[in-house]
Amino acid sequence: MTKSPLLIDLKFSDRAAVVAALKRHFADRDVIDLGAAENAGRDLSACRYAILWQPDADLFSRATNLEVLFSGGAGVDKVLALEGLPDAPLVRFVDPSLTRRMSEYVVLQCLFHLRQVAAYRDSQEARRWQPLPQPEAGAVTVGIMGLGELGRDAAAKLKMMGFNVVGWSRTAKTIEGIETFDEAGRDAFLAKTDILVGLLPLTAETTGLFNLALFEKLRRGGPLGAPVFINAGRGGSQVEADIVTALDRGLLGGASLDVFETEPLPAESPLWDRENVVITPHVAADSDISALFAHVERQIARFEAGEPLEHVVGRQRGY
Amino acid sequence: MTKSPLLIDLKFSDRAAVVAALKRHFADRDVIDLGAAENAGRDLSACRYAILWQPDADLFSRATNLEVLFSGGAGVDKVLALEGLPDAPLVRFVDPSLTRRMSEYVVLQCLFHLRQVAAYRDSQEARRWQPLPQPEAGAVTVGIMGLGELGRDAAAKLKMMGFNVVGWSRTAKTIEGIETFDEAGRDAFLAKTDILVGLLPLTAETTGLFNLALFEKLRRGGPLGAPVFINAGRGGSQVEADIVTALDRGLLGGASLDVFETEPLPAESPLWDRENVVITPHVAADSDISALFAHVERQIARFEAGEPLEHVVGRQRGY
Ligand SMILES: NC(=O)c1ccc[n+]([C@@H]2O[C@H](COP(=O)([O-])OP(=O)(O)OC[C@H]3O[C@@H](n4cnc5c(N)ncnc54)[C@H](OP(=O)(O)O)[C@@H]3O)[C@@H](O)[C@H]2O)c1
Ligand SMILES: NC(=O)c1ccc[n+]([C@@H]2O[C@H](COP(=O)([O-])OP(=O)(O)OC[C@H]3O[C@@H](n4cnc5c(N)ncnc54)[C@H](OP(=O)(O)O)[C@@H]3O)[C@@H](O)[C@H]2O)c1
Repeated sequence: MTKSPLLIDLKFSDRAAVVAALKRHFADRDVIDLGAAENAGRDLSACRYAILWQPDADLFSRATNLEVLFSGGAGVDKVLALEGLPDAPLVRFVDPSLTRRMSEYVVLQCLFHLRQVAAYRDSQEARRWQPLPQPEAGAVTVGIMGLGELGRDAAAKLKMMGFNVVGWSRTAKTIEGIETFDEAGRDAFLAKTDILVGLLPLTAETTGLFNLALFEKLRRGGPLGAPVFINAGRGGSQVEADIVTALDRGLLGGASLDVFETEPLPAESPLWDRENVVITPHVAADSDISALFAHVERQIARFEAGEPLEHVVGRQRGY
Repeated sequence: MTKSPLLIDLKFSDRAAVVAALKRHFADRDVIDLGAAENAGRDLSACRYAILWQPDADLFSRATNLEVLFSGGAGVDKVLALEGLPDAPLVRFVDPSLTRRMSEYVVLQCLFHLRQVAAYRDSQEARRWQPLPQPEAGAVTVGIMGLGELGRDAAAKLKMMGFNVVGWSRTAKTIEGIETFDEAGRDAFLAKTDILVGLLPLTAETTGLFNLALFEKLRRGGPLGAPVFINAGRGGSQVEADIVTALDRGLLGGASLDVFETEPLPAESPLWDRENVVITPHVAADSDISALFAHVERQIARFEAGEPLEHVVGRQRGY
């Protein structure tokens, strides 16, 4: 019995890394890599599995027998929006390395705003020795929206760094040392939050969620002077015009944004040179391609052994 | 039996904070605060305890019956150098809040260099969307010199953030999850280190320790391109001219400095505008004055109950 070939359609920027990682994975199985010119026009009807990131428009009309779909990224909003997506289980990418990288980003940005890095940089540029009053992390509450794989790890690490941490998710959670809120508790959650961290998937419910009305509900008079907004989930959850307005009105004192409504962020966006705003080009947590392939190998092995797949996306809820 | 008055000579920049904290502490004891004009010229001979930071030059000739001296800061190099310092036990300031604040600084600076904050800031200023290859923390080794109160807490938190951590101290230590080296293992320690963190007291042995010869021994070819130097111990341990040379020669790829040979750092220092160098004005870990007074209250209570004082400085070793 020969194994069904694995279809790969990953339009990642680093093509060489895909090729290199393929050499080290899927040794026991044929791989049809649509990134290689010689595979154009090949018959894909024998493929039961596919790993996808921005796949060809005609892919699903060519690969008509897919039984499991693997997303090349942790977020699946783009995959779910694909035309002709078959009704097979969609497995998203969950990986400890990706989670750790995201927590690096979140802890860095929270400490950046806590420890007034931008203000000290201004002093440094002016060759000015000027100590500033400094609250400690324990005086500051970080509120995390999204308590999934990424939000829970970030919460634990922020807590360990001394921050007070609260969290919000669709369904209620119990996490030691962290006060949590469900959908109904949103305003109470926001009223406690000095630094808001978005780690939500993009769904119908989370689209445009981070808007002026929400920023107005954040805690006022906290130790940072004004609340800070950090988003590393998806840009579609934020209203960038409202972020600019909130910064201008002092409703927000700073922001760190890794994701944007349009990516790359257009050069004319006013966010680029707002004071105390940190812009990064969707790099909060890189997917390691080798880790992605190892994860797919594990899940295919489970599937073929009759065990349930892990990290299957709920089509209804959208993540 | 009346209690011996407590002498206070704290030349902290925030005088109002000293006055405010005195209202909340030492309720059961007379306090002679030399910062208050009315105490100039008072008889100090009944004082058995004194809390000191940059005290008056004639203090020890006036307060001749001191039995315990308390340093107003964690570092005691300046106190030990005072003329006429009596041979009474000197207790230094150790406090969980100070330790937590120092770890905030150390974790922030390590993540700052790991996550290429300066390079991304340049991109942001140019309105350029430019992802960079990004190693994760686990690929980077942070080497901590000084495994005391501050170094051990920073090590545990860096480890938890995913960094590989090694440590160096005068006497050998066993710390779970961290490879440690004693004095003899210094070169082996340096050869493993991508980010060097100085958390040493200033003593005869540590003066001028961070010099060109030492920077040359750091790991080359690591994932950051070139090693990074972070110092939050004491400026006297570093040779600033050598830091500049090492940056110019690419022996160091960046630095974060909170302490300096001369403080405030003179406006003409070339360090102010070196690329990828973060200058802060000795604020890595503020002493909270209320915490300092609570610590002194605890130690006096121990002393008067006949229990041993904690955190007594070894005059011989100098810390
Ligand atoms: N910037 C980057 O580099 C980067 C990298 C990786 C991932 N991401 C983004 O991060 C997102 C989160 O990843 P993850 O692995 O943590 O996802 P996850 O494990 O699926 O967790 C999602 C969390 O969001 C909550 N949530 C979803 N919809 C909600 C709603 N309408 N109201 C309240 N809470 C809601 C979920 O609540 P329940 O717990 O109740 O289900 C869950 O706690 C991904 O979807 C992706 O878009 C960004
Ligand atoms: N920048 C700031 O805001 C700030 C704030 C607070 C403190 N500090 C500085 O931080 C320093 C460290 O504080 P701490 O509370 O961690 O001190 P500590 O508990 O006394 O620890 C000092 C550490 O340094 C090691 N050490 C001392 N001399 C050495 C030598 N010659 N060779 C190798 N290791 C040596 C000690 O080794 P052993 O373990 O073998 O004794 C110990 O591990 C303070 O002295 C102070 O100067 C700076």
